[in-house]
Amino acid sequence: MTLSKSWVDSANGATHPFPLNNLPYGVFSADGAEPHCGVAIGDMILDVTEAEAEGLIELSDEPLFDLPFWNPLMEEGPAVWAALRDRLTALLAEESEERGKVEPLLVAQADADMHMPFAVSEYTDFYAGRHHAQNVGTMFRGPENALPPNWLHIPIGYNGRASSVVVSGTDIRRPWGQLKGPNDDTPRFAPSQRFDIELEMGAIVGTPSDGPISVQEADDNIFGYVLLNDWSARDIQAWEYQPLGPFQAKATATSISPWIVTKAALEPFRCDTPTREVELLDHLKDVGPMLYDIDLSVIMTPEGKAATTIARTNYNEMYYSAAQQLAHHTTSGCPMNTGDLLGSGTISGPEKHNRGSLLELSWGGKEPLTLDSGETRSFINDGDTLVLTGEAKGDGFVIGFGDCTGKVLAALDTPYQRN
Amino acid sequence: MTLSKSWVDSANGATHPFPLNNLPYGVFSADGAEPHCGVAIGDMILDVTEAEAEGLIELSDEPLFDLPFWNPLMEEGPAVWAALRDRLTALLAEESEERGKVEPLLVAQADADMHMPFAVSEYTDFYAGRHHAQNVGTMFRGPENALPPNWLHIPIGYNGRASSVVVSGTDIRRPWGQLKGPNDDTPRFAPSQRFDIELEMGAIVGTPSDGPISVQEADDNIFGYVLLNDWSARDIQAWEYQPLGPFQAKATATSISPWIVTKAALEPFRCDTPTREVELLDHLKDVGPMLYDIDLSVIMTPEGKAATTIARTNYNEMYYSAAQQLAHHTTSGCPMNTGDLLGSGTISGPEKHNRGSLLELSWGGKEPLTLDSGETRSFINDGDTLVLTGEAKGDGFVIGFGDCTGKVLAALDTPYQRN
Repeated sequence: MTLSKSWVDSANGATHPFPLNNLPYGVFSADGAEPHCGVAIGDMILDVTEAEAEGLIELSDEPLFDLPFWNPLMEEGPAVWAALRDRLTALLAEESEERGKVEPLLVAQADADMHMPFAVSEYTDFYAGRHHAQNVGTMFRGPENALPPNWLHIPIGYNGRASSVVVSGTDIRRPWGQLKGPNDDTPRFAPSQRFDIELEMGAIVGTPSDGPISVQEADDNIFGYVLLNDWSARDIQAWEYQPLGPFQAKATATSISPWIVTKAALEPFRCDTPTREVELLDHLKDVGPMLYDIDLSVIMTPEGKAATTIARTNYNEMYYSAAQQLAHHTTSGCPMNTGDLLGSGTISGPEKHNRGSLLELSWGGKEPLTLDSGETRSFINDGDTLVLTGEAKGDGFVIGFGDCTGKVLAALDTPYQRN
Repeated sequence: MTLSKSWVDSANGATHPFPLNNLPYGVFSADGAEPHCGVAIGDMILDVTEAEAEGLIELSDEPLFDLPFWNPLMEEGPAVWAALRDRLTALLAEESEERGKVEPLLVAQADADMHMPFAVSEYTDFYAGRHHAQNVGTMFRGPENALPPNWLHIPIGYNGRASSVVVSGTDIRRPWGQLKGPNDDTPRFAPSQRFDIELEMGAIVGTPSDGPISVQEADDNIFGYVLLNDWSARDIQAWEYQPLGPFQAKATATSISPWIVTKAALEPFRCDTPTREVELLDHLKDVGPMLYDIDLSVIMTPEGKAATTIARTNYNEMYYSAAQQLAHHTTSGCPMNTGDLLGSGTISGPEKHNRGSLLELSWGGKEPLTLDSGETRSFINDGDTLVLTGEAKGDGFVIGFGDCTGKVLAALDTPYQRN
């Protein structure tokens, strides 16, 4: 597939994240208006709320876009998803005869604020990257026992906290928590000193289900993908996570990129999961290419200093696809809803510079990173900004996600002194 | 506190669960109407949607009750909660001068169907019963290592699945799942053979918070309580729960009783947590009596057979109060929303007949129970109905919750054959 040209000039650059091939969905505000739905095209946003109001898009008797979330469109199902994409493509293509009506509905991204693109129903996070699991397991249990016995048989996941999911650009407050360091006799309540990122992709459920579904059905039900940073307090996690898993260590915030990149836009980049080390049971078997070839990176910028790319990896390093994760999620009969968000798990590759968390990059703090600014880091310092980027590379075009950014602020003083 | 008398005669019985002292909130449908808000009084339901429409209740410019959930009232906060309770008490008290207007708004509970009383925002389940943790830990790790190191310092919890919470009376379908029995060389996909209950109380967050809150603030933010049965597939749980906690084992269903019993109704029954075995850190310290003296029981009824009460215990056996759990839940800055549901964890007492799960009652299947029907059970059979009951006993009155009931149906055949 090659670049599809648009009459929006900026969308035609070979490295622009938002060509006509992409058309990702976000929620923006500009000129004092309330947040509502928009579609990125080049450097601009098409105000689809206005386009619908003016009759340029007609998909439903009820307005779908004059809202601060894309959930109603997601609920409409694959036929309407395809109809919207076709219509947007027709309106914005180079040869469009409706340019005159559409052009006044464009807003510069530079003039807009971005908001959460959808209402998160529930949030689940997985632990399904082979290299990440191997790295973390080796640090904690040694290389022979790195993988738990179930790891090659099911995508291990836990329920996260939907209320903590925020859009890129939201500042992240360093959390307090109960923790017990290796030199502590007793636990104490303190700000986390091992605050970390996790480089992930998030899959968004479009079509709900009520009962077990197959891997193919799961793939069909997914609406799109975002970049996802699962901020993690490693010292809080170490103290709390046995026996029932991470809880407060993962509840401060999870950041996502502002644009939902649709499954349709990613079709040319589908790829297979890695070779199975153990044959999966039938209900989880691969039934087609359901991962995507998406280059990912992590950039760290200390306050007022130069930026350093600290990791580069690819979504194709995952052991389980989002479709396999979603299918597993329904095995017990668990109902899934429009707006459910599934984090892939940390995406690391085979080499040291492919690691998607500081825990792995600094090997638990034993091998601090040296940044381009000359500073060193084992975990995140106050004032550091962390950026995740992602792009799928086509023939003369790319599909970008928009950055997933967060700046870490100092912990507030003693939150319990006020009582 | 003694019985407050109502002109609704059935509410004046000394053992009736719904006297004027209680006034629990539910969602009902009758006579073909859509589900909407009602309040239990004796054998009747006061249709508060109608009462509001007729101007008998005026709390807000917007209607609060013509809805299938109580969330808008919960969002209004403690002053409005108190005003509603005062107004309902005035309308329904023996000496009410408005009986003539109110009486036509009563519907017999026998003629109504009950629905979920609130929209569950997110669901968290704890592991905060001392006897339960001791029992389960002893089975899995021996009596010396029964309690994890963190257990006496924080209320261990995990995020559950809000989409799986159902109202009492909903049938429960035995789940499939991946499991690996002690005699299996490899995992297999099969219906759970160790399907279990967990006897719990659920606390409902009324007032939202965005950042760490104290134990006192947490108690203030709680709106009310329900009975809660956290259905659990022990064989699925055993295979999946390391390292990130229970996932599909707990996602089939969680049943709650249909009436929200308000914190106000339970005030006379407040009691302290047990003596601390280890001093808690300041942010979790008890600041008043925040447990409640509520008798609880579990009744098992095989299809077509006699019922057996298989467990009796009390909510005052918990080591951590719901307020402490909620405060802990916010330590990392996790935002909490109206409608968040917090399961207490399984409530067991010191004696064998006080145990709140079949796992404990049958000691992992090694000591099957003998029911009054003569049958034996280690876990739940298809066709078994499980009922949780709860009541707080006052001086000449009780505060009841309404049963929390579920019948277990056979697993559906091979859900993946259809593909």
